[in-house]
Amino acid sequence: MTEKLINEELQIQMVSWRRDLHKHAESGFLEMRTASLVAGRLSRLGYPLKMAEEVMKADQRMGMPSQEILAAHYKWAEANGADLEWLPNFKDGMTGIVAVLETGRPGPTLAYRFDMDALDIQEEMAEGHIPFDQGFQSVNADKMHACAHDGHTSIGLGFAETLMSNKEKLAGTIKLIFQPAEEGTRGAKSMVAAGVVDDVDVFIAMHLGTGVPTGEFVAGNAGFLATTKLDVVFKGVASHAGGKPEEGRNALMAASSAILGLNGIPRHSAGASRINVGVLNAGSGRNIIPATAQMKIETRGETSEINDYIRTQAFAVLEGAAAMYGVEVSTDVVGEAKSSIPSKELVETLHSIAQSSPFFTKTIDWSTDSAGSEDATYYMEHVKAHGGLATYCIVGSDLAAGHHNERFDFDEASMLSAVDVLYRSALKISKA
Amino acid sequence: MTEKLINEELQIQMVSWRRDLHKHAESGFLEMRTASLVAGRLSRLGYPLKMAEEVMKADQRMGMPSQEILAAHYKWAEANGADLEWLPNFKDGMTGIVAVLETGRPGPTLAYRFDMDALDIQEEMAEGHIPFDQGFQSVNADKMHACAHDGHTSIGLGFAETLMSNKEKLAGTIKLIFQPAEEGTRGAKSMVAAGVVDDVDVFIAMHLGTGVPTGEFVAGNAGFLATTKLDVVFKGVASHAGGKPEEGRNALMAASSAILGLNGIPRHSAGASRINVGVLNAGSGRNIIPATAQMKIETRGETSEINDYIRTQAFAVLEGAAAMYGVEVSTDVVGEAKSSIPSKELVETLHSIAQSSPFFTKTIDWSTDSAGSEDATYYMEHVKAHGGLATYCIVGSDLAAGHHNERFDFDEASMLSAVDVLYRSALKISKA
Amino acid sequence: MTEKLINEELQIQMVSWRRDLHKHAESGFLEMRTASLVAGRLSRLGYPLKMAEEVMKADQRMGMPSQEILAAHYKWAEANGADLEWLPNFKDGMTGIVAVLETGRPGPTLAYRFDMDALDIQEEMAEGHIPFDQGFQSVNADKMHACAHDGHTSIGLGFAETLMSNKEKLAGTIKLIFQPAEEGTRGAKSMVAAGVVDDVDVFIAMHLGTGVPTGEFVAGNAGFLATTKLDVVFKGVASHAGGKPEEGRNALMAASSAILGLNGIPRHSAGASRINVGVLNAGSGRNIIPATAQMKIETRGETSEINDYIRTQAFAVLEGAAAMYGVEVSTDVVGEAKSSIPSKELVETLHSIAQSSPFFTKTIDWSTDSAGSEDATYYMEHVKAHGGLATYCIVGSDLAAGHHNERFDFDEASMLSAVDVLYRSALKISKA
Amino acid sequence: MTEKLINEELQIQMVSWRRDLHKHAESGFLEMRTASLVAGRLSRLGYPLKMAEEVMKADQRMGMPSQEILAAHYKWAEANGADLEWLPNFKDGMTGIVAVLETGRPGPTLAYRFDMDALDIQEEMAEGHIPFDQGFQSVNADKMHACAHDGHTSIGLGFAETLMSNKEKLAGTIKLIFQPAEEGTRGAKSMVAAGVVDDVDVFIAMHLGTGVPTGEFVAGNAGFLATTKLDVVFKGVASHAGGKPEEGRNALMAASSAILGLNGIPRHSAGASRINVGVLNAGSGRNIIPATAQMKIETRGETSEINDYIRTQAFAVLEGAAAMYGVEVSTDVVGEAKSSIPSKELVETLHSIAQSSPFFTKTIDWSTDSAGSEDATYYMEHVKAHGGLATYCIVGSDLAAGHHNERFDFDEASMLSAVDVLYRSALKISKA
Repeated sequence: MTEKLINEELQIQMVSWRRDLHKHAESGFLEMRTASLVAGRLSRLGYPLKMAEEVMKADQRMGMPSQEILAAHYKWAEANGADLEWLPNFKDGMTGIVAVLETGRPGPTLAYRFDMDALDIQEEMAEGHIPFDQGFQSVNADKMHACAHDGHTSIGLGFAETLMSNKEKLAGTIKLIFQPAEEGTRGAKSMVAAGVVDDVDVFIAMHLGTGVPTGEFVAGNAGFLATTKLDVVFKGVASHAGGKPEEGRNALMAASSAILGLNGIPRHSAGASRINVGVLNAGSGRNIIPATAQMKIETRGETSEINDYIRTQAFAVLEGAAAMYGVEVSTDVVGEAKSSIPSKELVETLHSIAQSSPFFTKTIDWSTDSAGSEDATYYMEHVKAHGGLATYCIVGSDLAAGHHNERFDFDEASMLSAVDVLYRSALKISKA
Repeated sequence: MTEKLINEELQIQMVSWRRDLHKHAESGFLEMRTASLVAGRLSRLGYPLKMAEEVMKADQRMGMPSQEILAAHYKWAEANGADLEWLPNFKDGMTGIVAVLETGRPGPTLAYRFDMDALDIQEEMAEGHIPFDQGFQSVNADKMHACAHDGHTSIGLGFAETLMSNKEKLAGTIKLIFQPAEEGTRGAKSMVAAGVVDDVDVFIAMHLGTGVPTGEFVAGNAGFLATTKLDVVFKGVASHAGGKPEEGRNALMAASSAILGLNGIPRHSAGASRINVGVLNAGSGRNIIPATAQMKIETRGETSEINDYIRTQAFAVLEGAAAMYGVEVSTDVVGEAKSSIPSKELVETLHSIAQSSPFFTKTIDWSTDSAGSEDATYYMEHVKAHGGLATYCIVGSDLAAGHHNERFDFDEASMLSAVDVLYRSALKISKA
Repeated sequence: MTEKLINEELQIQMVSWRRDLHKHAESGFLEMRTASLVAGRLSRLGYPLKMAEEVMKADQRMGMPSQEILAAHYKWAEANGADLEWLPNFKDGMTGIVAVLETGRPGPTLAYRFDMDALDIQEEMAEGHIPFDQGFQSVNADKMHACAHDGHTSIGLGFAETLMSNKEKLAGTIKLIFQPAEEGTRGAKSMVAAGVVDDVDVFIAMHLGTGVPTGEFVAGNAGFLATTKLDVVFKGVASHAGGKPEEGRNALMAASSAILGLNGIPRHSAGASRINVGVLNAGSGRNIIPATAQMKIETRGETSEINDYIRTQAFAVLEGAAAMYGVEVSTDVVGEAKSSIPSKELVETLHSIAQSSPFFTKTIDWSTDSAGSEDATYYMEHVKAHGGLATYCIVGSDLAAGHHNERFDFDEASMLSAVDVLYRSALKISKA
Repeated sequence: MTEKLINEELQIQMVSWRRDLHKHAESGFLEMRTASLVAGRLSRLGYPLKMAEEVMKADQRMGMPSQEILAAHYKWAEANGADLEWLPNFKDGMTGIVAVLETGRPGPTLAYRFDMDALDIQEEMAEGHIPFDQGFQSVNADKMHACAHDGHTSIGLGFAETLMSNKEKLAGTIKLIFQPAEEGTRGAKSMVAAGVVDDVDVFIAMHLGTGVPTGEFVAGNAGFLATTKLDVVFKGVASHAGGKPEEGRNALMAASSAILGLNGIPRHSAGASRINVGVLNAGSGRNIIPATAQMKIETRGETSEINDYIRTQAFAVLEGAAAMYGVEVSTDVVGEAKSSIPSKELVETLHSIAQSSPFFTKTIDWSTDSAGSEDATYYMEHVKAHGGLATYCIVGSDLAAGHHNERFDFDEASMLSAVDVLYRSALKISKA
């Protein structure tokens, strides 16, 4: 049961990578420095790589930063330790990478997904927060790895090294997917659209933490909600509120009416649904009829169908409200994810594999504790639709504070257990 | 100054007519008995008549009763003293009449408008209310002459007799217009559309009372607001509110959103505006998503332009609110009137004429006290647009209670003073 | 397994009762004729009875008819076949009855609930509808037994006769509860408040049909939603919308704002919730600021806690909306029911008992199919809270049309199977 | 008619002052440098001064900057040319000054008001804008004298010098009021509350420009609307919109409902009214129930009574909307002004005086052109209420762009004409 399969020296390396990534946190589609280092490392390990347009459909990315931000960040990456050989590949926010290990032996195609992006959060700068105490807190204001993707990327690299070192023991094909912009569920869709899992038989995504402590493992997380993120702009006409009120077209009234309508979208009898207008900013001055109103909306559904229902109703509400007040409305989908239930067969297999790992004192087959939404569901649904198997597993890790909190930190020791269980799955499944 | 020009015996006749009309109150487009008696009388006086399609555009009538109500009321009129020779002309709610006096002498074309309809009000049945005490209270439930149109019609007949008796003293052409459905401002538009004032040089409408006491006269009433009356139906889809809320399309939510939007239409800097949703009825049961909502709306504007602005905004609000909730909306214009300022020259002329009448102890040129809206403004604007002159005058009459009150009654003596001032105006203006 | 225990002659009697009750349908708190007949029959069987104030708290009844309606209906009952000896007991809408069988042998106290009221529905009067074809359609306009309570009452009487005939085979105490006003969930609370199940160890309620076909039985129905029914009146101040808009206090605007707010009450993360404003009537005339608005609301929750959350929020919305527009609001709770899960032990016992009945070809332990609510949950929660057991079972019956449909009719043959299973439960449980 | 009364050398001095003030623009209650220079100059001219608490009620100031801003600006003033002898008087935003000239001769008490504050506008920095071309553009970002108060203050100083030089020709008492924070109508109330016009018989306020060209004069401006400026904060409770929507208290929904309610406040039949929610900012993140919403509101009325009606309704709407959604609301009055009609007698006097000035080619008695508000109306109403006379006059001045525009600039030559007409009024009225 407890045979050691992996090189524990990896841990030192992974901690080093993780701390470097944490210090240079980059948010969605800006993971240019990160991607350049990942590409350099994978290449040196001997992996052939596909990148950027080869693995992403540019127009299926959601919630892109502006060209100005992309350009400025590129310069920052150039000046801050990016691998300059690889950096140019990732210039326009096309920061996805797929490394492929062809074993040459017959066997299935496996794929593992690792996400690389940080959050738009200002990291805590106070004693007691380990990254601060150890000097690897984020150097980028309002950017922080507060969801362990720095860990995921490091695990991906450690796993890549382990696979390559043990290539002779494996069969089939193994794909390592390094994905941008999981936060806001913005990046996966573009990689699936580019076909990166078209030929995949077994797909596994993993996450550290999420409430599961170090030493525990969950083989199938079934609780993800489908979601859509919308950015909405109402555009009306300003006029002097005292002098010519009839000449205005009031974007704030349209937004107010829309907000009441959106929150009033009927419940769906088939399961849970959610809608929230989380942010509204409107108007330019007290005595001016507001000409613009910008809102950030999120819908969720227990199933993709329920989320689609809410989304469809939301568009009707937004357009109707604009028409009521004679203003224009534009709505951008800046993030989206599906619901997806892991494949029963794969969950059981992975559960049994984890039981053989010396790193886990407790293993669980299914969890339905949801922490929200995940765009790994795009790969999962795509693979399942083509007859493959897919799951989303959790590698436990003690946390200093909850995900997305400014004091978030995970137990670095859990990275090695992740590499172990992933490697065991590759060993077992590739030859099944 | 105080020469008597008219036959005072008319007063007895007019009181008799008025009491018969009051007792047989008929509301808008149902003035079938009334019109048949008016036509019979005018014909016997020797007037050639135009009626129904000759003087009304059927599709320009607004707020029509249903075919069932029209048919039932026709039978009632047949059985309740209508002039059976003339009654068939007015069968389908085409209850307008124009009598024309051609003097054969050169002169302008004058037109006088008299309205004939009652209100949908239940008359007071208690002592102290003269129509009740004298036994001429309305025999029709929920129909009452509470705005003196019974008086106006009687004045019209008395005036017709006076003109015919004095035909030799007059010049030009004189048209007497008996109009249906002034209440709700529903009938005038159809008569103007049929061309009844296309050739008119001078137009005069009159009203009894309106707060002006017996013995006073106002030559030009300038305070009428433009108005539009809308009947709106939202049609959605019913569903069980507990079982399948997502299958409903909620007409009541659309109506609620519309009501807030309608009341929020911005003020107009050019003058006063109004909007009211006076009645809403929606839904069929507590646990059913409401599939229908019906509302009665009224807009007003100090000018026709302001009213048009409110009306245009209201249509946008209604359609947008329907779109928000995925329901259909249909909107009927069931009444409409313009604003209109009397012609200065005609007001001065009429003011001076009234000063020569022995019936008035006080005469006023202009009043801007508004009592609301009037569809006589359609004739006024049409005549003015063709270079003619128009006014709306008030013949004072002491009232028992305000207009549209269930105890309304006017001073019958004021009818003779009305005939006098109208005859004086015909005498003077036709030969000017 | 298939020993016959009951007298099948009962069937003829029950059909006769059921058709008489169907023909004389009486809605909630008006079951005066029904209650008088039930009381007469039970008394003749030898049951001591408690009635009216003895078994109902008057002020805990919800959604009462007006005094005028109660008085008029009493006269109708007097003239239409009520048992005049017992009728006076039920005069003021206190139409509940409890019959108690004391066996004199030690044993638990069992209670069975039967509801007696009809619905406010106009029965179909067309061929093919058996009550019409057979001449027992409702003689009361807009009143119809469209939910089988006529059957339930007849079953209760048949069961009472069976128990009394077999008194010697039973132990403990058996209570038969005949309840008014289950429709709208208005009556049970008042009987529970009067203590009728304070001493009960085992409580069983039953329903015919609900989608389960003749020959099937469900021992535990777990799907009832908690619910609250609210009648709301907003009272403002009327004023002329053109002349003095600032003097009005607009009840319809308050209602509209409330409707959007009520539909916008956030979902509860613990389970399903519902809210519906099913009916709104407001205003008196197109040009009058609406002074009144009346609405009918229904809330539901997967649990009583969720329904309480929605209800609490709803009150805040209603009061806030009234305050916004300077109007008054009054809210009456006109119906209420809890959620309740049957006792596992009792469901299993009853399931096993049903398997021994020759009337059922299929028996089911648990069902969670439901979109509705039931006030039997008041008894269930009360009994369970005191350590007793409770369930709600379904006796299958083929239906001509769904419950609450104007063509509803059930299979009369199912009544005998109901008596059989209830009698078997009494036999078994009273001696357990 | 064209006798020259004033020293034209003043013009050079006033231009110099004006440009210095323009360059060092200070907004409401931050006029510390300005006030110190004004106080120094007036003191050197020989005026006894009252300042700060002597002429302002601290708690009647509206829309105060924060303590941090006050403290920071004080330091800026210290370092940027303030008169350090007088500066400490104005530390806490108590920037009002009253200079009094006691002639020692019997006569009325006259008061003249000059406002000193700049606007929160970023001045145009481009050629063609004279302050930029001449190098006296504002050194303070987002602060600009775009409403000529730099001119008003300079006129006040020039007028003070003229009065003192001609003291022997005058009678009675003359008060010069230098007021902070006229923009946003925030400062006057506190000076009136401190009693600065309690003893005043004749009050005159003046403004440059407002559409009146150089060389023209308006003696009585009657068009000011009453107004109230409200800053509103709704405070709810944040919660995760997906995980625990029921735990949130949604400040944005309260704000949305309030916005529809505010815009729906009924028109007033007595005259024009306005309401605008010009700015709304709410919420912290897409997936968080918004816990705060901040809005800027402005009401207006043709009369103070109408504005009070709108204001009263607005408070009810705000409080009701907060109650609907279980959130708290706090509302600050950050500005307020009355309507006020100049005294007919004083307008006629001033009109006649202006006709004697060689600086004006055209003089007008009354103007009702205005879309705006002015807090000089506080002094006016107070003086009139005590039997005094008051007016608000306009000294024409050609403008480069409209008031409150970033390219605003006035014709500096108009300052001398203002001093002239004010001095003539003092001469004439003080001895009347």
